[in-house]
Amino acid sequence: MKKGNLTIDPWGASSIDNYDKVFKEFGLKEFPENWKKKLNHYLFRRNIIIAHRDFDKIIERINANKPFIQITGIASSGRMHLGHKIDIDLFLFLKKFKAKNYFAIADIDGYVSRQKINTMDEAKKIAVDNLAHALALGLKTKDVYVQSKQKPFYYNLAFECSKKITENMYSAIYGHTDFGKISAVLLQIVDIIHPQLIEGKMPSVTGIGLEQDPHARITRDIAKRLPYTLEVPSFLYFLHQSGLQQGKKMSSSEPLTAIFLDDSSEEVKKKISTAFTGGKDTLEEQKRLGGRPDICKVYEIYKFHHPSNKFVEDIFKRCSSGKLLCGECKGLCIKFLTNFLEKHQERVKKTRKIAEKMVN
Amino acid sequence: MKKGNLTIDPWGASSIDNYDKVFKEFGLKEFPENWKKKLNHYLFRRNIIIAHRDFDKIIERINANKPFIQITGIASSGRMHLGHKIDIDLFLFLKKFKAKNYFAIADIDGYVSRQKINTMDEAKKIAVDNLAHALALGLKTKDVYVQSKQKPFYYNLAFECSKKITENMYSAIYGHTDFGKISAVLLQIVDIIHPQLIEGKMPSVTGIGLEQDPHARITRDIAKRLPYTLEVPSFLYFLHQSGLQQGKKMSSSEPLTAIFLDDSSEEVKKKISTAFTGGKDTLEEQKRLGGRPDICKVYEIYKFHHPSNKFVEDIFKRCSSGKLLCGECKGLCIKFLTNFLEKHQERVKKTRKIAEKMVN
Repeated sequence: MKKGNLTIDPWGASSIDNYDKVFKEFGLKEFPENWKKKLNHYLFRRNIIIAHRDFDKIIERINANKPFIQITGIASSGRMHLGHKIDIDLFLFLKKFKAKNYFAIADIDGYVSRQKINTMDEAKKIAVDNLAHALALGLKTKDVYVQSKQKPFYYNLAFECSKKITENMYSAIYGHTDFGKISAVLLQIVDIIHPQLIEGKMPSVTGIGLEQDPHARITRDIAKRLPYTLEVPSFLYFLHQSGLQQGKKMSSSEPLTAIFLDDSSEEVKKKISTAFTGGKDTLEEQKRLGGRPDICKVYEIYKFHHPSNKFVEDIFKRCSSGKLLCGECKGLCIKFLTNFLEKHQERVKKTRKIAEKMVN
Repeated sequence: MKKGNLTIDPWGASSIDNYDKVFKEFGLKEFPENWKKKLNHYLFRRNIIIAHRDFDKIIERINANKPFIQITGIASSGRMHLGHKIDIDLFLFLKKFKAKNYFAIADIDGYVSRQKINTMDEAKKIAVDNLAHALALGLKTKDVYVQSKQKPFYYNLAFECSKKITENMYSAIYGHTDFGKISAVLLQIVDIIHPQLIEGKMPSVTGIGLEQDPHARITRDIAKRLPYTLEVPSFLYFLHQSGLQQGKKMSSSEPLTAIFLDDSSEEVKKKISTAFTGGKDTLEEQKRLGGRPDICKVYEIYKFHHPSNKFVEDIFKRCSSGKLLCGECKGLCIKFLTNFLEKHQERVKKTRKIAEKMVN
């Protein structure tokens, strides 16, 4: 790679190539350029949302200024990290169009599908914490529902769906028949489908990670089999931010891999300081050859979370050209994150009480 | 068999012998004589209730004049016949002690576990009909709940239970992993367990057919695994009334095999007239040798449903001794049934509206 090579897409389109096979195998479509312009949000522009199923239907609705459903949520499985913020950012963005908004606090899901969570009470404690953070990120209470506190028709629909799933069909998609996880899948299907029983038949969209595509497929299949008039749900696919250490996923069981929304300034400092970068072995070399933002975890934080396109592009250029060194860049990142988290954690103090009321 | 052999138990204890193996294999206990006296209801006296699991706990409660839970119900799968009346008779009898009463109209169960029922609406129509009949038989609305109209905690418990069932455990008990039927099983477990989450830890009793013992076993197992303080549920086991034709089971798909609670007088006449009896080939022979009430379907109706022990014993003696011939006996049975059904169906006209309100 030559010094200051600016032909590399700063939004990391190269990483999409890895997914090409997945797209073709499962029938996902790449997110088209003209839609990215239309939607004008960095999640699209920076290729963080990279693929879709039937998002055409939503684009049509947006173009016609007509309502559509958006439904997403958080399974109550642990602390929230920056990765969860992306889901909420997309949710808040789509609210600007005529979306009917459903955000699930999936406490039952968290309990039934995670071995480490031993009681519904534990799941509910996590749910309170998650909801407090989500509200602090800008989610409105009126857009939120709690899985364990729904109306009977919601649960009835889960049992109805169970009749429409054969063991063969399920095993082919998931490769197991773990009963708790089956319950979680049933509820995920219901989460995505039930808004149409409230709002009427209507296109709906849910943002998920690529690895969650099995849920999308089974949900779309069941929507066709149920004795209700339903639009087959659409999906958007996120790239996941990787872990802060080389070759790691973000994981709540390895706290150093992720920035959690309740991390202290000290923790942020420690995590960013030890994060893997695209820097060279020596300062001299880095100044001469430039860094590699495309493999840098600090750059990835900017790419996924910094609101200013200009700032992120500038970091990319200055790093690639050897003008910005890792120490300075990490300092900027720590400042950006601690500033954000400080304000966020102030808001959480206020939203926690509301969250407690909503979940319990 | 010699004429007028009155050493045969008119309550057909002989038929219990057939179940001895089942009892031993699964650990059921025969219902003891002294309890039958204590409870003093023909269902016990006539050996229609033949076995139990942990009914000791209920007897203790009854003896101490302390509360216990009774929970039973009807799956909304078709028309109600005389067999269902037995469940309700037991329920009404146990109310005389300090029972906390829970009667489930199991509409979700009916839908998810029966292929022939295509929508929840169909199941709910059946539920209305079943409930109308149950109320006409003396069930009180305050003792009834409808599965599809429960509070969230009820449904949450079903999902919680799913986490406590492994595929191996389920397959070993049921021999299949049909998803709709798994849902039905989860709800049956919840039906039996959830009253303790309302009333507090307390012995509970549910009357079931012997073939339903798998439900009892899985329910007792799950009750031990849930993170709540629960008494392991007790069960009573019914003999089922057989079909009116020789070698047949009562079945709603073969209407001639059963007396339905909405049968007309004409249907009753036709069904009893064609029912299999214990009569001999010729009148002369029957007068000389006596009939066999122990294999007679008409006698079985008396045994399962006639309120007077004296009447039933008298029929048994007069038949066995050749004094009562099948024609006369069938006439008596038709009279008994049409008289009962006429009054019952008058009551159903009134209860149907209440049932509609409760289910919809």
